[in-house]
Amino acid sequence: MTSPVELILKKRDGGTHTSEELVALVQGFLAGTIADYQMSAWLMAALIRGLDEAETTALTQAMLHSGKVLGLRSVRAPKIDKHSTGGVGDKISLCLAPLVAACGVVAPLIAGRGLGHTGGTLDKLEAIPGYRVGLEPRAFERVLREVGASIIGQSAAIAPADRRLYALRDVTGTVESTPLIVASILSKKLAAGSDGLVLDVKVGRGAFMPDLRRARALARALVRTARKAGLPTVALITDMSVPIGRTIGNALELREAIEVLHDAGPSDTRELTLVLGVEMLRLAGRAKSSAEARRLLERALADGSAFERFRRMVHAHGGDLRVIDDPDRLPRAKVRVPLLAKRSGVLRSMDPLELAWVSLGLGAGRTRAEHKVDPGAGIELCHAVGERVERGEPLAYLSAAKRSLIDAVKARAELAFELGTRAPGRRRLVLERIAR
Amino acid sequence: MTSPVELILKKRDGGTHTSEELVALVQGFLAGTIADYQMSAWLMAALIRGLDEAETTALTQAMLHSGKVLGLRSVRAPKIDKHSTGGVGDKISLCLAPLVAACGVVAPLIAGRGLGHTGGTLDKLEAIPGYRVGLEPRAFERVLREVGASIIGQSAAIAPADRRLYALRDVTGTVESTPLIVASILSKKLAAGSDGLVLDVKVGRGAFMPDLRRARALARALVRTARKAGLPTVALITDMSVPIGRTIGNALELREAIEVLHDAGPSDTRELTLVLGVEMLRLAGRAKSSAEARRLLERALADGSAFERFRRMVHAHGGDLRVIDDPDRLPRAKVRVPLLAKRSGVLRSMDPLELAWVSLGLGAGRTRAEHKVDPGAGIELCHAVGERVERGEPLAYLSAAKRSLIDAVKARAELAFELGTRAPGRRRLVLERIAR
Repeated sequence: MTSPVELILKKRDGGTHTSEELVALVQGFLAGTIADYQMSAWLMAALIRGLDEAETTALTQAMLHSGKVLGLRSVRAPKIDKHSTGGVGDKISLCLAPLVAACGVVAPLIAGRGLGHTGGTLDKLEAIPGYRVGLEPRAFERVLREVGASIIGQSAAIAPADRRLYALRDVTGTVESTPLIVASILSKKLAAGSDGLVLDVKVGRGAFMPDLRRARALARALVRTARKAGLPTVALITDMSVPIGRTIGNALELREAIEVLHDAGPSDTRELTLVLGVEMLRLAGRAKSSAEARRLLERALADGSAFERFRRMVHAHGGDLRVIDDPDRLPRAKVRVPLLAKRSGVLRSMDPLELAWVSLGLGAGRTRAEHKVDPGAGIELCHAVGERVERGEPLAYLSAAKRSLIDAVKARAELAFELGTRAPGRRRLVLERIAR
Repeated sequence: MTSPVELILKKRDGGTHTSEELVALVQGFLAGTIADYQMSAWLMAALIRGLDEAETTALTQAMLHSGKVLGLRSVRAPKIDKHSTGGVGDKISLCLAPLVAACGVVAPLIAGRGLGHTGGTLDKLEAIPGYRVGLEPRAFERVLREVGASIIGQSAAIAPADRRLYALRDVTGTVESTPLIVASILSKKLAAGSDGLVLDVKVGRGAFMPDLRRARALARALVRTARKAGLPTVALITDMSVPIGRTIGNALELREAIEVLHDAGPSDTRELTLVLGVEMLRLAGRAKSSAEARRLLERALADGSAFERFRRMVHAHGGDLRVIDDPDRLPRAKVRVPLLAKRSGVLRSMDPLELAWVSLGLGAGRTRAEHKVDPGAGIELCHAVGERVERGEPLAYLSAAKRSLIDAVKARAELAFELGTRAPGRRRLVLERIAR
């Protein structure tokens, strides 16, 4: 058995770990024979020296097997998971899970909560009174079998090594390592027991990866490692240079998702849902071509079957269907204030990162895991990039529980909008598709 | 104020710290606002990315000022410190401190205990019944004023950041960094209040630095950083390919040191004492040339004044002078067994690292700080490298409290001796002198 210091020295000096060594590392860390200060030294060495594909795969497997692996054997239809690296205004999972379920693909999504500038799908679902995100594995499996779509939170039993490692990485400057990110994401995804995975790797100001080169490297590493581990995976690299859709904030985003499920809503939210849905249907073998997959998805939006699946999913999770059928009943913030344009011009950009921090300030997000979010708080954007705005017209509406919260972020919110004379170039939603 | 994670990220990404940042790092670590796991991540980043000269100097100063700085103002004569990076059979400090004191140079030596394969000067002195290594700063200063030589242990008040950092480096694979080693050594040396420093940087199998290139880099970094901090410093890079002298073990080494102080003893122990003494006298301005310094030192050995200083130093520390005057009274191990040559030949080498581990096994050293050492245990070497040994003649005598301890290491001890047909090339004791 290799000692903790020997493991550290090997990576420090640029060596390559065997899979046995990585299992010893993960197991030792969980058992406490490798201390936090030793693991953080190893993490830093791994971040700087790198991990090759075989090491990344072995680390992923070691983290996966640190906890429970779901079987979902009673769910016969093809099960396709979806994961986003996190964006601003990203309510796609809410639309996507019921949409693909309506097309015969089971969507077993394990989602997260918002932290810092990224929103969390669970917080958005919890804007529905009664919705329970904490289903036990057996109940999760039953909902998948009966409804075809379920979105739950991560159980403590799944990949516990990842949770402890991530908490340590967060405070030791060791987050930005592609192999460590890959192992963190995939250890959880492999534990969920699905037959395929579609990744939405976001790139731009509002994303974890600000430039295309690094986003591409992450997407490739994710796809390769997942495929090596036996999970067919496709990644789309999508634009995160402006917020997705027109809303940021939990109930507001849920409302937008319902609009999309009613075959309406902002065109980018709808389009992103469709392109990811096409990949899920193709991975599941439900369509022979992308065009066919798209037709199936568009029909499920148009004929109401996608919305009906959403209702059934919410119902199965204990959610109050009245707010789904009448979104005006969704939680609202007490104060709603327009943010007026101080000049006229063409809306050239809306900075997603700034708007995310504004939304956080309004109460829609949290900076620490133990904070509560205000479901009604957030931002409604009034225009798409490229549209003309006249001086005095609202650029957005800001909602919060107190006027003082809005006043505190108003100046920052104004800076997020860039008005100019010429319209910007057309935005490409999907930048690349990575399938191997 | 920079956050812990920002400090880690800066070094991780190859940035250069300001001295304020390094002060914040050291102070934050001592205050507990920077956790062990954060410091170890920083240490790993610093080991891999490096620290430049200005950073090394700033880190040294920050560590120095984490504790008490001695003034020694009442000691008027020039005070020259000596530090060895650690060797096997290294009893030089015991000879050197009284020798230079006899030549008018004050030697305020702060020494360490043995750990792992390196012996400790304090353990050797404690083979003298009654010798107290833990003098308070005021008593230390008085002995220096009255005797001119004092060897004590490090007070907890001196550079506490170094003690905590070293303990963490030891268990996180972050020991082998030249800048971190420099800061560790010099933070303590600068705190001792001397006017100059002579470094014995050892190179070879029995040394911390096995190859000349790295030993030279360490020596240069030490000399430059010390000089920048205002401490004139000279380093000698000396050979550690065989043990120094003929003894390994506490009372055995003390006995050899007394022989040298009586103008006798093994020629390499004597020579190393003289060459380091020359540097100390020259740094102190006590001699115009190395030749003059050497004459002064040789005279102090020949006329008994060096030995007399040693007696006074031991007396001032409460040590029993009877064992100094009659070394047969020094502690002896119960069992003493010859290690016989299994063939005839010329002694080509004696592996210092192997012999150090043998000595450890005999009870002369410790593997953990809390262990006690056996003062009488150790190894007496019967021949110098290059001498002819006949089959059945003793190569060495092994001493320990129990026969079983000797039996356990005997095979390993035999492997340390290489007998051949041709004598090896002549050994150079001093490989390089680094003065800037």
